[in-house]
Amino acid sequence: MSFCLGADIGGTNIRIGLVDEEGRIVARRRLRTDPQAPPGTVLERLARTALAMAEKHEVASFGIGIAGLVDHRDGLVFTSPNLPAWERVPVKDILSRLTRLPVFCANDANVVALGEWLFGAARGSTDVLVITLGTGVGTGIIAEGRLLLGANHYAGELGHTVIFPNGVSCPCGNRGCLERYVGAEAIVHRCRRLLRLQQHRLASNRNQLTLFGGASEQQSLLFDLINYDYRRLTPKEIGIAARKGDRLALEVVEETGRLLGLGIYNAIMILDPEIIVLGGGISRLGRPLLRAVQKSVNSRLYGANRSFRIVLSKLVDDAGILGASRLGQIFSASD
Amino acid sequence: MSFCLGADIGGTNIRIGLVDEEGRIVARRRLRTDPQAPPGTVLERLARTALAMAEKHEVASFGIGIAGLVDHRDGLVFTSPNLPAWERVPVKDILSRLTRLPVFCANDANVVALGEWLFGAARGSTDVLVITLGTGVGTGIIAEGRLLLGANHYAGELGHTVIFPNGVSCPCGNRGCLERYVGAEAIVHRCRRLLRLQQHRLASNRNQLTLFGGASEQQSLLFDLINYDYRRLTPKEIGIAARKGDRLALEVVEETGRLLGLGIYNAIMILDPEIIVLGGGISRLGRPLLRAVQKSVNSRLYGANRSFRIVLSKLVDDAGILGASRLGQIFSASD
Repeated sequence: MSFCLGADIGGTNIRIGLVDEEGRIVARRRLRTDPQAPPGTVLERLARTALAMAEKHEVASFGIGIAGLVDHRDGLVFTSPNLPAWERVPVKDILSRLTRLPVFCANDANVVALGEWLFGAARGSTDVLVITLGTGVGTGIIAEGRLLLGANHYAGELGHTVIFPNGVSCPCGNRGCLERYVGAEAIVHRCRRLLRLQQHRLASNRNQLTLFGGASEQQSLLFDLINYDYRRLTPKEIGIAARKGDRLALEVVEETGRLLGLGIYNAIMILDPEIIVLGGGISRLGRPLLRAVQKSVNSRLYGANRSFRIVLSKLVDDAGILGASRLGQIFSASD
Repeated sequence: MSFCLGADIGGTNIRIGLVDEEGRIVARRRLRTDPQAPPGTVLERLARTALAMAEKHEVASFGIGIAGLVDHRDGLVFTSPNLPAWERVPVKDILSRLTRLPVFCANDANVVALGEWLFGAARGSTDVLVITLGTGVGTGIIAEGRLLLGANHYAGELGHTVIFPNGVSCPCGNRGCLERYVGAEAIVHRCRRLLRLQQHRLASNRNQLTLFGGASEQQSLLFDLINYDYRRLTPKEIGIAARKGDRLALEVVEETGRLLGLGIYNAIMILDPEIIVLGGGISRLGRPLLRAVQKSVNSRLYGANRSFRIVLSKLVDDAGILGASRLGQIFSASD
């Protein structure tokens, strides 16, 4: 039986898996990423770990997914937003030399899309959009049964499509990018604003005689979860509170879904996918997020008997390893 | 030598061409379209004309482009916005029977995109976006050297991507669609508004003593071109005036280009094309439109060493005939 290695190099962790022919991860390791370490050192550690995992197995290829701008043909990482030390790193050359395996590289959003397409929620579809929600909004596109890279390997920048032409500034230099409204930072910012408003409202209610005796507002669970320290607020707490039915957290999730739906609607108009998969850490906001996205998209679609589904990823973190493990087959087939 | 027939069925005209192996249109005919006529009658006239053109030639196939929702596999026209009588018309079956030729059908925007890709400005590129500007905004996409149809054959609805989430209503049922800002009707509307404003300004200037003696505003050429009858205003007159340097007409064209650029920017983010071709009647607004689109797109792009070009179509009306004539090859190859 033949195996493939797949690795997903992120800003915090490197996840490595040994994957069998049926797409089962038979062994996995996690290394902490040191964003300041020289890429050569990081790749050496990665190669050593991968080789140790592959011992006693016949390994056909080693696929790497990495955030940033990647030349897929040459396996060159131009830049990586979370790994500032990585500039023009010949990942394919270095890892091939260290492991003596055929090595293939791709952008992490594309690798996740491959994982979802070959082994996850989008299995069997030919037109797929996989959106990885996290700090940024990564997107991988499968069009007519092939990974769509684009002329400069920049395809799938859904996070930088404009949803409000005069909207908030984005580090990319533009204004109103989807990512500024549905990325992790935007979600936390939205939630903090609502928490502050609620705190003011509750404080002033306590200081007033409630003449009209209206039902008093329930304090959000989030205050307890973060121990009244706004700095502790992350999407994780918002997800926990939303699942417990907390109204403020649900409002944050719904507004996020409504805005994400706007961006997805535009992608649907252009690509006409059969299935849209929401993955990445933020997709753990779960069904309330999914429902808000579906509602937002459907509120704009009329008449057309267009069939598509929007679903949550079931693979989440494994999608990257699984997709990376199949880069060899994908790229060999398209040559 | 073998020839192919190509026809472009529009709301006003049917254009038919006999195309040789090098993509030269060696004969052409134009029939007036009667939108109320039964599709069977229209297709019979089309078949008769095509057969007469093909006489004495060896014809390999007959390709048809038609506005609307087309099932490309079965050659079925579900609906056509400009031909209300056309509903669920088995165009491929009818024309095959009448002409005894292999017949292939596709949406007109896709056919135009094929024409530009195989014979026009996008020749030799693998990732292409062709935008047909007219009453609507049709779009055909070539992705990695293949026509992108999408799961429901709805891909390329750039005209219905949202550029202003709370913008003007669109007949599609949604709000803020690109088409409502850059379609023929929107352009004429924009121009009329500016003409009315100018008329008021000029009239009130004449009735006042110009105390400060500022340079008086030049009356737009358009008033003469339409003989002061706003109903006569069409994009054609706006183009003529803009080419003569008329400031008001140029302002209309620039605003249109700025808004079109917004929609194109989003498509670039998703698809990463190598070349974007502007065709269709409205593209006759020419270089001022092109420059405004380029400026709008570039004003949002920062840093990224992304290479792409935006150009005007040189084929314009011929793109449809040429693309349609090649449907046989395209669809046979992809089966």
